Order: sequence, then C-alpha cells, then structure tokens
Amino acid sequence: MTSTPTGTPSLGARPDEVRRHNRTVLLRRLHVGGPTTRASLAAELGLNRSTIKALVDGLAETGVVEEKVPRQRSGAGRPSLLVLPQPHAAVVLAVDVRVDQVSIALVGLGGAILGRNSWNLRGHTRGPEEVITHVVDSAIVLAADIGVTMVAGGVSVPGVVRRSDGLVHEAPNLHWTGVPLGERLSTVFGMPVVIGNDAELGALAEHLRGAAREASDAVYVSADVGVGGGVISDGSALRGTAGYVGELGHMAVNPAGRQCYCGSTGCWETEVGEPALCRALGLREGSPRGAVVAELRALASSSALVRERLGEFGEWLTVGLVNVVNVLGPELVVLGDLFTALPASLIADVGGEVRKRSLVSRAVGGIRIVVSTLGPDSTLLGAAELAFEPVLDGV
Amino acid sequence: MTSTPTGTPSLGARPDEVRRHNRTVLLRRLHVGGPTTRASLAAELGLNRSTIKALVDGLAETGVVEEKVPRQRSGAGRPSLLVLPQPHAAVVLAVDVRVDQVSIALVGLGGAILGRNSWNLRGHTRGPEEVITHVVDSAIVLAADIGVTMVAGGVSVPGVVRRSDGLVHEAPNLHWTGVPLGERLSTVFGMPVVIGNDAELGALAEHLRGAAREASDAVYVSADVGVGGGVISDGSALRGTAGYVGELGHMAVNPAGRQCYCGSTGCWETEVGEPALCRALGLREGSPRGAVVAELRALASSSALVRERLGEFGEWLTVGLVNVVNVLGPELVVLGDLFTALPASLIADVGGEVRKRSLVSRAVGGIRIVVSTLGPDSTLLGAAELAFEPVLDGV
Repeated sequence: MTSTPTGTPSLGARPDEVRRHNRTVLLRRLHVGGPTTRASLAAELGLNRSTIKALVDGLAETGVVEEKVPRQRSGAGRPSLLVLPQPHAAVVLAVDVRVDQVSIALVGLGGAILGRNSWNLRGHTRGPEEVITHVVDSAIVLAADIGVTMVAGGVSVPGVVRRSDGLVHEAPNLHWTGVPLGERLSTVFGMPVVIGNDAELGALAEHLRGAAREASDAVYVSADVGVGGGVISDGSALRGTAGYVGELGHMAVNPAGRQCYCGSTGCWETEVGEPALCRALGLREGSPRGAVVAELRALASSSALVRERLGEFGEWLTVGLVNVVNVLGPELVVLGDLFTALPASLIADVGGEVRKRSLVSRAVGGIRIVVSTLGPDSTLLGAAELAFEPVLDGV
Repeated sequence: MTSTPTGTPSLGARPDEVRRHNRTVLLRRLHVGGPTTRASLAAELGLNRSTIKALVDGLAETGVVEEKVPRQRSGAGRPSLLVLPQPHAAVVLAVDVRVDQVSIALVGLGGAILGRNSWNLRGHTRGPEEVITHVVDSAIVLAADIGVTMVAGGVSVPGVVRRSDGLVHEAPNLHWTGVPLGERLSTVFGMPVVIGNDAELGALAEHLRGAAREASDAVYVSADVGVGGGVISDGSALRGTAGYVGELGHMAVNPAGRQCYCGSTGCWETEVGEPALCRALGLREGSPRGAVVAELRALASSSALVRERLGEFGEWLTVGLVNVVNVLGPELVVLGDLFTALPASLIADVGGEVRKRSLVSRAVGGIRIVVSTLGPDSTLLGAAELAFEPVLDGV
C-alpha cells in the first residue's frame, strides 16, 4: 500500500476531474514509490499506456519528472525508460517541534532531504513567538543556501491540533495553548503551512516510507514525555472530528493510578511515558534522554534483569496495547521514539502477551508489534508528507 | 453526510468507471436520502443536469426509479418531478441474530421494511445449524408471502466476524466458534450474504438513518450481555485488518476487576454489560430484559436514587466513554440497545463528566452523547444496509 491516492473524486466525477485525479495518483506513486517504468505505472495504476504516456509527457514538459535509460537492464530488447521525479520540482519545508528541540528540513519531490538544521530549546526559547521567529529565519537561510523555493510547509507538534486551520489547541509539554500556528506561518511564508500531531505524522511516515509500508491497517505509538498514537486505517490516516486526531496516551488504564494533567486519572501515558520509565529505571524524572537510553542499554543484555526492573512497566505497556489492538484492529503496531530504545526482550515479551490477551489479535491470527525503522526522523518525514499532500494535486 | 459513495474509483479512473460510479452515487443518494427532484440531485451530487437526466432515464427504463408529480407544490411554474426509488426493484434479506432472539426482515430499495418475522432462541435452538435452517425456511416463506425475490442478504452477529468471507470467528455469548456463516448462507440462498458485527451494523444504521445522520465522525456503543462498538470515521465505517472490526467492550479499564472470558482482566464490558447492570440494580445476573428495564424505569423518577444505585456503574460508563472519545475523536456518541433504557439523568451526568475529563472533547468544544433513535431495529436495519452495499453497484 505505498500509493494512497489523495485526490479521489468523492461525488459525481467529471472527465476533467478524472484527468486531474489520474495525474495526482501517478505523481503520488512516483513520489512515494520512487522511479519506475511507464509499463509498471500502467500495470500498477490500472490505466492504459496511452493515458500514462500523455500524463508522463505533460509532467516531463514542465520539468516535474525526467525519463532516463536505467543503468541495469534486464533481458534483451529496447530498454524501458525510467520515470524519475525531480526533487527540485517541488520542495517543501518540514518542521518537527519537540519539547527540547526543533528540527527543520527541506524535502524535495520523491522524499529526499535536501538540507536540514536543528536547535535545542530551553525554557525561555520555547514560547510560540520565539519558535516561529527562529523557524522562519532558519528556513529562509536554508532555502537560500541550497538555492530552492519552498512551495508548502508541514509542522509536527506534540499536542492536540485542529487540522482545518492549524490551531494548536493544547501542547501541554510545551505549555502552548490556543496557538494559531498554521495561520501565522502561512501568512509569514506566503504559502500553505499545515500543522499535524506528532504521532499522527509518525504514523503517516511509517506507512509511506517505514515499518508499516506493507500494512493498510497499522497503529504507530510513540513515547516522549507524553504518549501519542496515530492510526492508519484501510491505507489512510484516521482523523477524528474537526481534524482532531485521537489521543491514545489518554486512555484511562489505571483507575488507581496518578492524576493526569488532562483531567482524567491513570492515563496510559502516566504509566508508560518517559517519566514513568525513569521511575522504573530508578532515575530522576526529567533525566536527559541520553541517560535513560544508556540505562536501558546496560539492562538489555540480561532478559532476567529486564523482567525484574521493567516488568511492571511492560505490564502497563501490554494493557494499553491490548486496548489499542482490541479497539482499532490493526495488523501491525509500530513503536516509535523512546520506545525504540526498549530492550528487544521486553518488546518480545510484550508482543507475546498482547497476542495472548487480545481477542482481536487471536481472531486475525496474531498481530505484529515492531519498532520504527525511521528512527527520530519519522515525525519530520511525516511533516514533509503532510506538506506534500496538497502540492501533489497541483504541481 | 447522508450519501456515502460506495463505488469511488480508487486507482486511475476510466470513463466507464466514472459513469458507473455516478450511477451508484445517485442510486445511493435516493436509497438513503429518499425521493427528491432532478434539480436537487444535480446540485447535491455536483453533476450537470444532462448527466442526471441520462442516469435517471436509464434507471426509470429498468423500473429502478419512477418519476412523479409531487403532491405539494412550492411556488408557481412547471412542477419539478420527484424521483422515487422503487422498493420492489431490489429486495434484500436482513437477519439479526441475538443471544435470545433471531429477527429477519425483507427490506426494499429506499429502506422500507416490506415484511418481518422473529422467534426466540432457547438453549437447544441456538446452535448454528438450527439457526441457519430456521433463517432459510422463514426467509423463503416470507418472500413467497409478499411476492418478492431476494437479491442479497446481510446478517448481524454479536461476535468477532471476518468481513471478507463471513466467518464468525467467535460469538462468545452464542457459544459459536469458527462458523462459516457467510459461505453457508450464500450457498443455500444462491445470492451474496454478508456478515457483520452487531455494533458495527448498529453504527451504520444510526449513521444512515438514525441519530448520527448529520455526523461524519461518530461512535455507536451498545450493551447487551456484551458491550460492542462501531465507528463511523469521516463518513465511512471503520474496519480493522482483514475486515475485523474493533471490540470496544474489551478495553481493559479496571486492572483490579473481573477476569474476562477474552483472556484479559477488567474489560469495559465486565463493568457496564447487562450482568454488571443487574448487579448494580440488585437483580440476579441473567434476569430477563423486561425485569431490568422495569427496575430502571422505577428508579428514573428520582435522580438522587439513580446516583445512589447507579453511581459506580455510571463511573465505569464514563471511564470507557472518555477512552472512546480520546482514542477516536468523534463528534457524537450514540448509546444503543440496553443503554437506551438508562435513566436520562444518568446519561446527562455521564455526558457532563465525559466532556469534563476528555482532552479531545474539550478540544472540539464538547462532544455529544445521545441515545439511539432507531431502538431495537438498528442492527436489523444495519444488516439490510450491509446487504445493499454491493446491490447498489449493480441494480
């Protein structure tokens, strides 16, 4: 499921909409799946060769794609030309705002990172005004350095975000409330800038380019200070009402647990977020990520020690994942961010328990629980894909 | 959102697919939304009048629709003809298998019930063979009585169901395991028969014809012996991998709670299913539904008494609904089946608490929690809509 069409006509379709739709589907296939031949495009998209030729010729004329003789030829006969998306034909700005760091990247058509930059946040530089100013300055310098023009932007924020207009309703760990981030950045840059929830964008990136490429129903669950999740359902990102994505970290799993800032008690993130992991490891809450990861590495060689120290943490991870699997019925769960540092023996134990205790997992013959393959770049790459969505309709 | 297109072309679209798609969208609009004029169809579907005329003429020729002068005329001038779907043009069989009762209905194009029948199940008549035999016999007699031919069937089952081939993986309260219900019924009837989970079909019916008609993101939660849920996301039914829908009743909400048959502990349904409600009311578990409803009616006049007797039950209902809202981000939750008998003061209290404690509800400005408007027919009507899905493509 590497090609998710974006421009599917949803009401009655007119011929011009069909052409535009086909063009978007083809471009999206090239952007996500990489270079391929006209013949493969025809087969994959179910279109005839003359339609593919007309579309590719049109895109080649405007420099969006190029056709080349492939380096490796298979079999005899005339070589089939490869259709390559041209990175500079459309460049987007991707921004990943985290609690302690901001990263930006310029990403070209086809998904290559053309340039990147990042800086740490400390208390006084974490306000929305400071972050906006720094993002704008850095992006303009970076674009000038590598000689490209940005056409759209996507921003990942760890919080509850309204997709329609990019309002950050609440990003508790940044202490942001009601920040009209999308509007502000769109105005300053003079281009569309879309805002997404970090876990939702992680899910998007894993689905398009990472561990969930082959899965049409997957859930991405990641832990930083908070715990979030993104859902791919039938090949598309699931989004709740008004564009708000769900907040998996705020499932109440332990009524006897801690009060959560959200107004509920015993939320999943109070049991499996970074502070909970620090407590389990005997570290001070708020310890630097490096210290947490080092402690996890030190444990990892002994699965007995892992069970002793992280048994209860693993139990809460299991309970929440059983709920995720029972409610959403994915074929695959991808664990991201801090969870990628957990010992492999713990992940294996948790996976086994989830398969045993989940009705839905037993029904589908066992769901898989794996670790992200994109590492810390998943949210940044997801932000780029968010920016590309409208761009691919109109390049 | 009363018209959910089913035949949306998902890859590159060819002109014949577009015509077929438009025809399905139009038919679906008439089936779900009821009679309307050509002019309204053009406006709603975004198609021009000549396209609408060609489609309606084609459907009228084969007797699928009829055009009539409306009884009430608005304004002067030539009356705009109403396009009416013809119930007998396509009749489907709907079956609702419950723990204690089976209902069948023959439903015509447009959604009207043309005839129905039902019978109680007792221990020895609850086996899949007995149910299949009785459904087949009754449906054939009913169809002959009212002189119609069935073209497809839909069946609601309270259990974990694989959509692709209609396998009932596990229907615990019926004691069914691995029943190839879809295959068996399709073979006997010689027509496609699709199987769905009861709560998923309740959600579908509420979305198309009930309390969630105007909501594109809604969750339907219903309680019988078990608790189940169906999700409408962006206007379509959410379905997990391999067609398995999620099982909201098996979110673990109380680690200190009862062992659930599913292999987990403290599942939501152990706290808010019918047996839990019986315990809260001081009734024997397994009391007849009539006794439970009578006890709830007796309480309802005093909201103080409701709080005293059902306070803890309401708290568990709240905890689960907070999770549902935080994970899925709906704008509306519809409570069905046994939940419709809960005192209005309890529903209001629970709604208030959910809005207060849910991060996502606060973000969207407060989600609504309402009671089903279709009553006990919601799953039966949902089963009919399941049967209609492929039919509307090909009438």
